[in-house]
Amino acid sequence: MSVVGLGDRDRLLAAAIAAVEVAGQVIRPFFRSGLGAELKGDQSPVTVADRNAEQAMRTLLSQRVPEAGILGEEFGLDRPDARLRWVLDPIDGTRAFITGRPTFGILVGLLMDGVPVLGIIDQPITGERWVGVAGEPTHFAGPFGGAAGTRSCLSLNEAELSCTSPAMMDGATQPRFDALEAGVRRTSWGGDCYAYGLLALGHIDIIAERDMKIWDWAALVPVIEGAGGRVTDWNGDRLREDGDGSVLAVGDPALGDRAVEALRGRPG
Amino acid sequence: MSVVGLGDRDRLLAAAIAAVEVAGQVIRPFFRSGLGAELKGDQSPVTVADRNAEQAMRTLLSQRVPEAGILGEEFGLDRPDARLRWVLDPIDGTRAFITGRPTFGILVGLLMDGVPVLGIIDQPITGERWVGVAGEPTHFAGPFGGAAGTRSCLSLNEAELSCTSPAMMDGATQPRFDALEAGVRRTSWGGDCYAYGLLALGHIDIIAERDMKIWDWAALVPVIEGAGGRVTDWNGDRLREDGDGSVLAVGDPALGDRAVEALRGRPG
Repeated sequence: MSVVGLGDRDRLLAAAIAAVEVAGQVIRPFFRSGLGAELKGDQSPVTVADRNAEQAMRTLLSQRVPEAGILGEEFGLDRPDARLRWVLDPIDGTRAFITGRPTFGILVGLLMDGVPVLGIIDQPITGERWVGVAGEPTHFAGPFGGAAGTRSCLSLNEAELSCTSPAMMDGATQPRFDALEAGVRRTSWGGDCYAYGLLALGHIDIIAERDMKIWDWAALVPVIEGAGGRVTDWNGDRLREDGDGSVLAVGDPALGDRAVEALRGRPG
Repeated sequence: MSVVGLGDRDRLLAAAIAAVEVAGQVIRPFFRSGLGAELKGDQSPVTVADRNAEQAMRTLLSQRVPEAGILGEEFGLDRPDARLRWVLDPIDGTRAFITGRPTFGILVGLLMDGVPVLGIIDQPITGERWVGVAGEPTHFAGPFGGAAGTRSCLSLNEAELSCTSPAMMDGATQPRFDALEAGVRRTSWGGDCYAYGLLALGHIDIIAERDMKIWDWAALVPVIEGAGGRVTDWNGDRLREDGDGSVLAVGDPALGDRAVEALRGRPG
């Protein structure tokens, strides 16, 4: 994050941490709650938690970093011309949240001229948090153990593959995913952003997903790169907001090319 | 559990709780550990944790309840003629354990003449525990909130479906699962025994899985029944050790028949 300077680095990081903390305060009362019956109309606890948390983050970030734009799923884009842009996903893993799984997460990313330079994956139920800043080692803390740092994995047939849901694939992408899956050691399902966190701890080697919006991946990139991994699309190219929505994360950058080859239908 | 009498009920429950606690002590050091490199030969941390935990549970249970048989995945069946039989799965959710997800569980079930009368789902990382005793309300405790008790769900199109992995299905069962999935509101993936615990808390409505051995389901039955739900095979029949390995759990018993119909390929 040298582009923004050291003073800004501390200020921006502190704002990002404050944002995930205020979001966590909003979200926690809704988790495994019976609040559904009390809410009016077709509002669900997850919808209310999601909107309220995004609004709380927007208010906090616009006060603390007034020069930055803000993009969130629920309330669109503020200050589109700003070079710095926060990218917010208050509840990444809606299905996990709805079903009471503590594996959803709060995502706060920061783009500088469109490039992710800071990212936080925060798990407000377990108390786990991953912090990534471009050019720095990723920091992880939580009560269940683990340390930031991806692991070496040079061959596909040794790799643990993870994906949130088979429903991410369609007729065109299912054969490509199948070709990758056929080459790996094992596949596990579910996880949303939590799986990317586990890749950054060295427990998962590859994640291949589709249908990912910029608020799903912006925060992940600095976390994974700072842990030694690589994040691209399925073609091995840098993620872009106007890309095809595919995401390929690898813990060992050397595995990336093999995964891209496999995803072309030619298992490496 | 009237068949075994009140005095035995307390003694057996205390033994089961002691068993999951000793297993947790064995397993925790291996979770998210770098122990793989230190282990000899082709031993993996999960294999060592699994075997050591089962051995510790067997030793404890054979001392405290010498009249009962013990069945576990790793070390087979002791005292096959005993009317009481412990059924042990030290790490249900091997993939979850391997990938650092805190959603695997320790399962201890107790059969009386082949019928599950006591079951514990214990999550040694998060500290969550479900205790089911035949004829009693299920008890749940844990740091993330939630209360034992399934929820009402009268129609498939309102139901949250969960399944650990699409790889559980084969050519014959995939179309049946697809027919069920087509009728429900939403599907989430992953979870192993943890998903059955969430069904017992009223956050998931249906779980349909295959390839389940008796040590995968024996502990789940008293937990789910005591929370108000129902567990059968995909035909709606009682689970048997020599059954077809299919498991269908529903939070609302009234949903069971509709799910069975859907699994026949006729969505209800």
